[in-house]
Amino acid sequence: MDIKNEALKIHRDYQGKIEIKTKFDIKTKETLGLAYTPGVSYPCLEINKNYDSIYEYTSKGNWVAIVTNGTAVLGLGDIGAGAGLPVMEGKAALFKTFAGVDAFPICINSKNIDEIVNTIKLLEPTFGGINLEDIKAPECFEIEEKLKKEMNIPVFHDDQHGTAIVVLSAIINALKVVDKKEENSTVVINGAGSAGTAIAKLLTHVGFKNIILVDRKGVLCPGEDWMNEAMQKIAAATNPNKVCGTLADAIKNADIFIGVSAPKALTEDMIKSMAKDPIIFALANPEPEILPEEALKAGAKVVATGRSDYPNQVNNLLAFPGIFRGALDVRAKEINMEMKIAAANAIAGLIDDKELNPEYIIPDALDRRISSIVASYVAKAAIETGVAQNKNITPQMVEVHTKKLLGMD
Amino acid sequence: MDIKNEALKIHRDYQGKIEIKTKFDIKTKETLGLAYTPGVSYPCLEINKNYDSIYEYTSKGNWVAIVTNGTAVLGLGDIGAGAGLPVMEGKAALFKTFAGVDAFPICINSKNIDEIVNTIKLLEPTFGGINLEDIKAPECFEIEEKLKKEMNIPVFHDDQHGTAIVVLSAIINALKVVDKKEENSTVVINGAGSAGTAIAKLLTHVGFKNIILVDRKGVLCPGEDWMNEAMQKIAAATNPNKVCGTLADAIKNADIFIGVSAPKALTEDMIKSMAKDPIIFALANPEPEILPEEALKAGAKVVATGRSDYPNQVNNLLAFPGIFRGALDVRAKEINMEMKIAAANAIAGLIDDKELNPEYIIPDALDRRISSIVASYVAKAAIETGVAQNKNITPQMVEVHTKKLLGMD
Repeated sequence: MDIKNEALKIHRDYQGKIEIKTKFDIKTKETLGLAYTPGVSYPCLEINKNYDSIYEYTSKGNWVAIVTNGTAVLGLGDIGAGAGLPVMEGKAALFKTFAGVDAFPICINSKNIDEIVNTIKLLEPTFGGINLEDIKAPECFEIEEKLKKEMNIPVFHDDQHGTAIVVLSAIINALKVVDKKEENSTVVINGAGSAGTAIAKLLTHVGFKNIILVDRKGVLCPGEDWMNEAMQKIAAATNPNKVCGTLADAIKNADIFIGVSAPKALTEDMIKSMAKDPIIFALANPEPEILPEEALKAGAKVVATGRSDYPNQVNNLLAFPGIFRGALDVRAKEINMEMKIAAANAIAGLIDDKELNPEYIIPDALDRRISSIVASYVAKAAIETGVAQNKNITPQMVEVHTKKLLGMD
Repeated sequence: MDIKNEALKIHRDYQGKIEIKTKFDIKTKETLGLAYTPGVSYPCLEINKNYDSIYEYTSKGNWVAIVTNGTAVLGLGDIGAGAGLPVMEGKAALFKTFAGVDAFPICINSKNIDEIVNTIKLLEPTFGGINLEDIKAPECFEIEEKLKKEMNIPVFHDDQHGTAIVVLSAIINALKVVDKKEENSTVVINGAGSAGTAIAKLLTHVGFKNIILVDRKGVLCPGEDWMNEAMQKIAAATNPNKVCGTLADAIKNADIFIGVSAPKALTEDMIKSMAKDPIIFALANPEPEILPEEALKAGAKVVATGRSDYPNQVNNLLAFPGIFRGALDVRAKEINMEMKIAAANAIAGLIDDKELNPEYIIPDALDRRISSIVASYVAKAAIETGVAQNKNITPQMVEVHTKKLLGMD
């Protein structure tokens, strides 16, 4: 298949990927009078009286804004907010297909952090959640942080947290395969952008003690003056042995390599210098840091990539639909660390110990069971940590609701 | 029917009125790889290379933002951006149902003109057009004016222009009924907000020479110091005889009364003081300026209201779906005066001379023929005035396209 021409053709034939659907017919005088004037004034007045009823009378609670400014679209770099639209439409299609979430692309023509933050804030009435997407680091950190403080709906940067969650779920299972423990395993993360930083933070939270981040200029070694503020912070919080130098230096005796960087960044010699039973996640896409066959030849025990044509595909699709489904259903104030870890456990748990093997540590991204389980785990964590604002819903109800939305009931 | 409870129930049962639909299935690995990574990068790169191709590869060209800040929602006043959401969702449902236009509610939490303008401008990549809705006067004038200057997509304030267009179409036919001409007819417009002002401007453009606007404080008489800037401007452009005073003064010997004001503003005595065969448009909703039976008793020849339970309903639904359909299909840079007049002629022309009578001067809002004809007239005017950017489409093609979208082919 000529993927380029096929992809251009399908986008052209359908003129994009998403459209509006009305939830009920308004072709008769009667329904028109209820859905529009004069009847529509009654829900308006109810919301004016009690703002929270907006979740009852409108679709706000099921809409997510997919927000980008086009500065880091896929691996294509800063191509502009408009050129990012096909990705955002695709993401909206995935949200609907995999979790019944209604999502809309908000492509913001700006690179100014405060302007972006203010624009998103002003749009709060229409949305139940914010999914930040393909915004370059380090701006994405500040945008997310500010929005989390200033908005009353969950804000989630998928390139950071979605990736980190799926990586964590894969690591949970990979460690089972090689029979190692989090606290004793050294992790090297190549690429200290949004994904690498978020992976490091999440791993720290589940008990990893030794994480070394490496960027194009070398190891994030506390004190190096080429590092930006976000890098300084994360280097101080991880890397306890103050390892410095290059990737080749950092990887010696490491247990896990996670590449969110560039093609061919990892060599067979580097893998050979690692501890016993190396775990290699070569996630650069489409061309990984090392090809799986080369990694295995060099002694890797478990290999994952971002590609669908190799075993163990690390794919954000495993996480974000179910995470938002769960967060929206319980009306979570935020998507906190506990909810992220719950999502990773849900994904990892889909593979039982009998099925688990070096070539099957992550479920297939198209596995239809995933969203409802992730959603119910996330809902449970939200309820337990007190961020669920809808008190009348249980994790079990979230699972049933998700299945119903997907036509699986 | 208990309309309040029925309206609340239908909104609650469906949790709002709109949802996303994917244009094609992305449940298989193959379609997923075309609609999302890796295939989606190709349309992104095409748009990055040639921005105009965004209309080819995305749904931008069919999406309209329905923008409000909730300051003048229906007749409810300033109820807030969130409380306006049911109306915006309803409008989105109407856009889709009546013209196949995909529309999304953008409820902006701000009353600051520049902040609103900037927010809308920054969202340009996602939309093919902007429909301003339920924003109070005089702010709505400045917002529209600034956006028209600074955006490359059509901007249309429906409360102004949609209403004005449908009123004009009704006047065209009403004048036929009473056998009078535009240039000899005096018009009194009661209500000098967004609708009244827009009606006055549009009527001026089609040849009316004598229009008197009246607001709560009296006639918009050039020089009166209580008038805001917009009022000063429109008073200077209309009202050539410098009539001053009250509605009762202005309406003496007038041919047409147009009320976009308040219940019971018009009395039988006022109608009796008008010229022969008075035309009365009592459009306040739900309670008109005068009830049709009273107006007829006082000598009115043609009466129209905003209500669906009387003959001659002036309903914006006759105009905005077809106008945007036509503007989007030819990729119009703007919706100019000629396109608005074309829309009014299209609506009026749907009633032929044999059908025309005092109780049938406006087609039914649910008449399924309307959108495609309005769209083709609007497209024709756009092409003729040089604002159509898609040079490969004819008015006939727009009509066929609209019918196809509505399942009428």
